Amino acid sequence: MGSLTDIGVSAGINILSALGFLLAFAVLRIQPINDRVYFPKWYLKGTRSSPRHLGAGFSKFVNADLSTYIRFLNWMPAALKMPEPELIEHAGLDSAVYVRIYLLGLKIFVPIALLAFSVLVPVNWTSATLANEGISYDEIDKLSISNLGKGSKRFWAHIAMSYVFTFWTFFVLYHEYKVVTTMRLRFLANQNRRPDQYTVLVRNVPPDPDESVSEHVEHFFAVNHRDHYLSHQIVYNANHLSGLVEKKKGLQNWLIYYENKHAKKPAKKPTMKTGLWGLWGQRVDAIEYYKKEIEELCKQEDEERQKVITDPNSIMPAAFVSFKTRWGAAVCAQTQQTSNPTVWLTEWAPEPRDVYWANLAIPFVELSVRRLIVTVALFFLTFFFMVPIAIVQSLANLDDIEKVLPFLKPIIERNSLKSVIQGFLPGIVLKIFLILLPTILMAMSKIEGHTSLSGLDRKTAMKYYIFLFVNVFLGSVITGTAFQQLDKFIHQSANKIPEVVGESIPMKATFFMTYIMVDGWAGIAAEVLRLKALVIFHIKNAFLVRTELDREQAMDPGSLDFYNSEPRLQLYFLLGLVYAVVTPMLLPFIIVFFSLAYLVFRHQIINVYSQQYESGAQFWPDVHMRLIIALIVSQILLLGLLSTQEAEKSTVALLPLPVLSIWFHYVCKGRFEPAFVKFPLQDAMVKDTLERANDPTLNLREYLKGAYVHPVFRKNDIFELVAIDEEEKNPIVVTKRQSRMNTPAGSKFNSSSGGTNEGDFGRMPPT
Amino acid sequence: MGSLTDIGVSAGINILSALGFLLAFAVLRIQPINDRVYFPKWYLKGTRSSPRHLGAGFSKFVNADLSTYIRFLNWMPAALKMPEPELIEHAGLDSAVYVRIYLLGLKIFVPIALLAFSVLVPVNWTSATLANEGISYDEIDKLSISNLGKGSKRFWAHIAMSYVFTFWTFFVLYHEYKVVTTMRLRFLANQNRRPDQYTVLVRNVPPDPDESVSEHVEHFFAVNHRDHYLSHQIVYNANHLSGLVEKKKGLQNWLIYYENKHAKKPAKKPTMKTGLWGLWGQRVDAIEYYKKEIEELCKQEDEERQKVITDPNSIMPAAFVSFKTRWGAAVCAQTQQTSNPTVWLTEWAPEPRDVYWANLAIPFVELSVRRLIVTVALFFLTFFFMVPIAIVQSLANLDDIEKVLPFLKPIIERNSLKSVIQGFLPGIVLKIFLILLPTILMAMSKIEGHTSLSGLDRKTAMKYYIFLFVNVFLGSVITGTAFQQLDKFIHQSANKIPEVVGESIPMKATFFMTYIMVDGWAGIAAEVLRLKALVIFHIKNAFLVRTELDREQAMDPGSLDFYNSEPRLQLYFLLGLVYAVVTPMLLPFIIVFFSLAYLVFRHQIINVYSQQYESGAQFWPDVHMRLIIALIVSQILLLGLLSTQEAEKSTVALLPLPVLSIWFHYVCKGRFEPAFVKFPLQDAMVKDTLERANDPTLNLREYLKGAYVHPVFRKNDIFELVAIDEEEKNPIVVTKRQSRMNTPAGSKFNSSSGGTNEGDFGRMPPT
Repeated sequence: MGSLTDIGVSAGINILSALGFLLAFAVLRIQPINDRVYFPKWYLKGTRSSPRHLGAGFSKFVNADLSTYIRFLNWMPAALKMPEPELIEHAGLDSAVYVRIYLLGLKIFVPIALLAFSVLVPVNWTSATLANEGISYDEIDKLSISNLGKGSKRFWAHIAMSYVFTFWTFFVLYHEYKVVTTMRLRFLANQNRRPDQYTVLVRNVPPDPDESVSEHVEHFFAVNHRDHYLSHQIVYNANHLSGLVEKKKGLQNWLIYYENKHAKKPAKKPTMKTGLWGLWGQRVDAIEYYKKEIEELCKQEDEERQKVITDPNSIMPAAFVSFKTRWGAAVCAQTQQTSNPTVWLTEWAPEPRDVYWANLAIPFVELSVRRLIVTVALFFLTFFFMVPIAIVQSLANLDDIEKVLPFLKPIIERNSLKSVIQGFLPGIVLKIFLILLPTILMAMSKIEGHTSLSGLDRKTAMKYYIFLFVNVFLGSVITGTAFQQLDKFIHQSANKIPEVVGESIPMKATFFMTYIMVDGWAGIAAEVLRLKALVIFHIKNAFLVRTELDREQAMDPGSLDFYNSEPRLQLYFLLGLVYAVVTPMLLPFIIVFFSLAYLVFRHQIINVYSQQYESGAQFWPDVHMRLIIALIVSQILLLGLLSTQEAEKSTVALLPLPVLSIWFHYVCKGRFEPAFVKFPLQDAMVKDTLERANDPTLNLREYLKGAYVHPVFRKNDIFELVAIDEEEKNPIVVTKRQSRMNTPAGSKFNSSSGGTNEGDFGRMPPT
Repeated sequence: MGSLTDIGVSAGINILSALGFLLAFAVLRIQPINDRVYFPKWYLKGTRSSPRHLGAGFSKFVNADLSTYIRFLNWMPAALKMPEPELIEHAGLDSAVYVRIYLLGLKIFVPIALLAFSVLVPVNWTSATLANEGISYDEIDKLSISNLGKGSKRFWAHIAMSYVFTFWTFFVLYHEYKVVTTMRLRFLANQNRRPDQYTVLVRNVPPDPDESVSEHVEHFFAVNHRDHYLSHQIVYNANHLSGLVEKKKGLQNWLIYYENKHAKKPAKKPTMKTGLWGLWGQRVDAIEYYKKEIEELCKQEDEERQKVITDPNSIMPAAFVSFKTRWGAAVCAQTQQTSNPTVWLTEWAPEPRDVYWANLAIPFVELSVRRLIVTVALFFLTFFFMVPIAIVQSLANLDDIEKVLPFLKPIIERNSLKSVIQGFLPGIVLKIFLILLPTILMAMSKIEGHTSLSGLDRKTAMKYYIFLFVNVFLGSVITGTAFQQLDKFIHQSANKIPEVVGESIPMKATFFMTYIMVDGWAGIAAEVLRLKALVIFHIKNAFLVRTELDREQAMDPGSLDFYNSEPRLQLYFLLGLVYAVVTPMLLPFIIVFFSLAYLVFRHQIINVYSQQYESGAQFWPDVHMRLIIALIVSQILLLGLLSTQEAEKSTVALLPLPVLSIWFHYVCKGRFEPAFVKFPLQDAMVKDTLERANDPTLNLREYLKGAYVHPVFRKNDIFELVAIDEEEKNPIVVTKRQSRMNTPAGSKFNSSSGGTNEGDFGRMPPT
């Protein structure tokens, strides 16, 4: 264990760097030119307009009002001011609940820290084993469990505290789960009418030789949910089309860039090379070139759109089925439709913006194969990721780089620089991998075939947590790569593993303190600065922005990135719980992290982030489960640690703890989890009844029309015009279907239960 | 490993004893006096009447027709003759599917045995390691994997075979799951109208300060399942009452016994002592005494019945809610009702005869506590059951017995006898425990709070399987008590455990062959003899039977006892899969067991057993899962065995097998399991539609009335009379409820949705 001075120095450096970030943030955020970087949410809400219009000249870009510099920390109280209901209203439940995780950290660890410092620290301090044994020791060691001699009776204090901490954590977790469940239910109950309340996603529609997917869906639900079925929206495989749309957007950006360039220097026509990255090829007039390219692409897009709509192969065996009442949708989403459980799979439709369209068509059998492959891949990624990294590292030596990029030779050849780069390169390769890791894991989740962005986020978070637990936590405690650990664990007895890990836990306390400061404190402070968004915004602003609308699009508010931030945050819970009994000195560091993170993230969700979707805090069961895992790990490691201290008999007293924790998990799961997976019929009925009373003339069919159209079709104006036109000509009359047999062929694209004769092309994209 | 001769002798003895049992059965079953023991099912069906009426005198009791003795084995083909659809019709789906498990054993092991004998046995035989090394060896060893030298290349044959066996097992299991699923779905679809198709069991009705349970249930479902709710039946806590009824039955048996005695010797009035077991106390006239006692009990019973009905405390917060359509019931059973998932829990109602009434009122929180306790208890029972056994064994020495029962002294004191008894006593104590074990486990399942007999059977089977796996399988392989194993395992490395177990597997082959013969062959042969049922029937027949009805009641057809027989049967699958690659010589023993068992059980379900309930083969997912567990265990043990044979590198080739097996389990689970837990809406809709067409005038309310009345009320004639009377006076008119507020107090016991004014006391027991 390091000395107090080491920690002090490290803390000082990190506090200074964190303060530096915060200071930079405080200064940058009050510059009008950065307003859209630090307050994008308000722009998106339309409640804030560019401050640049107000001032003139210099003050358009730089804040010259000195009084605001004095109050540079006033964002902190401001971030705390907004009450929670308003926060939910403003930023959504997902964000509001997410910041509660940091608060939960404070709720768990502040009382634990107080208790630990008032009970365990004195107990450890007054033991004098280290002093007596004449080992070189340190102040921090005197405060930790290491100061107790082997077989000491004082371990009973730690065992008792372990119980107290566990029960306190149970209490806080249970209470928090209850609060979040209530918040979710209230949120769902207060929500305005939303398309997903009436809609169910049906997958694996079985093929029918006589009917199209659309007809088949209609017939099936008109028969089996006779009184409730309203309409449906078939799903097109528009992945290629959306690729084209994306590409067009990129080309348009370049066109704007060159047009701006031309506007600034009208004399000179901008030119470009057509080859790769504009480095090779023929030099042409850039504006002309891009205009032609875009035109070409528009044509391709129209053809593709035409193809998607007319080609039956591009219709996926999936559909969004809407019901007349929330009750009907709730029933359909929760029940099994046919005796073959692999077809007609129904689940709640995600919010329209939450749908991950590309995965809607994966058949059931393929899904299980994909899951197997991804699970195996995750195992190898977690335990063997060092293998490819090492190969890349060995390849990435400077001599090879010189061969590929000979013009770098003079720079590299300087001896001093060469050794520095050579030393850094392997680290950089690893760092790049770690930065890319969440994206890799997200890609794996996409392969698994989840159909909503929120689901992808949750599954990726689980994978990332496993990776961090094995490679960061265990990897730091028992030095060595994950594969070496795995090998060691397999060859060790079951009770040796917690002993080995537990024994090295106290020795790693200093390391983790530094880790918390570097990764936690500084990381959070960097988060608030938004350096990347700042740079990108200013680049875009300089080259692409012409109109106010362009500037709007140049803003990147970002989002919480649950899959990236939550697993890392869980690591701090794990560290806190593991060290609470062993080295309480670590707790203040964790508490500072949680306080700072709470402040920063509350500020960010109020002023910056714009969430892509709203899942109603559906991630909470996952968060809760990982907290329980951390708790159980901490208990097992304490058990292992004590059993090496010749206190084996007293450690038996710790055995009930993991059993209790597992049991507690199941109790909470049974008590609260259904609120996150199912939608109770009573609530649906209440909302239906209220709606009937408040809005008896509601045309639900009209309301739901187009809600679940693929985004590439949705933004197409022509489509909307045609749709409205058709609708006006053919007012919808809800008629019961007469018979399955006399549906005319013309209703092939008709996707509403209402009618065989009217041409309700509402849900059909234009031709 | 034992010698071929040892096995031969053992096989001879066991074959002889099995043949003895079969011969005894063949003779006993054709005696008219035993007809009710060996063919009770046909009596219960009413298609067979006592053969004793036909003959006269001696031939009433003993079969004198010698020709039938010659054909004494003709029950075997007869047992196979009945085609499966008829078997389902005759014995129910549960039984028909249960015997398929034995058939499944043959399907798995016959091809595996053929392959093993044509490939593995020659490979093993032609290796000459044992002969070369000069170890004393044996013919059986030459056929087993032990004959291969360390690091032999021939292990690849075993690895390849392991893959072949695994895929064959996958194929058979998948196919069987599919067949059973189809059978279940067809069975459910073909089933006649049954009350449980319309009914849902609702538990944890929350208390309401203003309303009784009955009112609360009615209001809740009338609102939230407006178009579907029909009626409901509240549940009374009649556990004490059924205790009284049971007691009365016992007393009535004694009364009959003494009356019979008196009838035989009219001169002498039978007397008895009133104390414990008739050993102490005052001597009284037995008939008078029992008559008085029964009268007393009748009075108590009436009072108790009165109390149950009038006391609101004896109304449980549970109800059976019936719906107008199967669709409505399917919807309610599969959905969540309110935002609090611990109240208004709905599930399919079990068949009326499958309901385990005593557990209907356990609140949600208590359930999870009970589960925790039972899980911990099961753990201790499995690993530490030897502790109390050892204590009892040490107490049960003869000197203590002499003190308690001094009159046994002269017998015990004979020296030769004493040592024999002293030697046997501990074994007897253990044997008694093992006989009682399934009952103990069943009691534990009851404590867990399952609400149906079928559920209790399934959960008990799981517990018993765990016990057998740990104590019989592992306990035999690594000699020592389960606790010693546990201790050893904890102190061994993770990869050592399969090595240790795997290494001793080949050496235990002879032991398990003997086990299969003693426990399997002889056990099955004893099953068909029904010695216990035979003895009890004849005792009852001699003392209690006066009328034909009494004789009917004296029959004990027994039932399959899934919780007792299935786990033991699973052990043979485990042995077969484990030894298939290691010592193929074991397979013929298993095949003989499965063939014999298939024959015997098919005979028994046709002629003897009368199942208490019909769950529609709901146990299959459990059976399937345990087979997968056996498969995975066999793969891991082979892995362990090979890694001790210095074939470590080739064993890596075995690693994918367990992963594939787990994956296969999930595929099957996703594909088939829902058919065993849920009821698809489409099937419900089809049946509803058919029924409406076939029987438009059906009065469902009338049909369902009384279906879910507690059995102690159901058999009460007065109740039924009153009910019908009430019904006639107040014909039911199905009216929509007007409002929750104007329900008059008088409807407190009204349990139908129809009406606030009519007095439909149909479902209320009489006052």
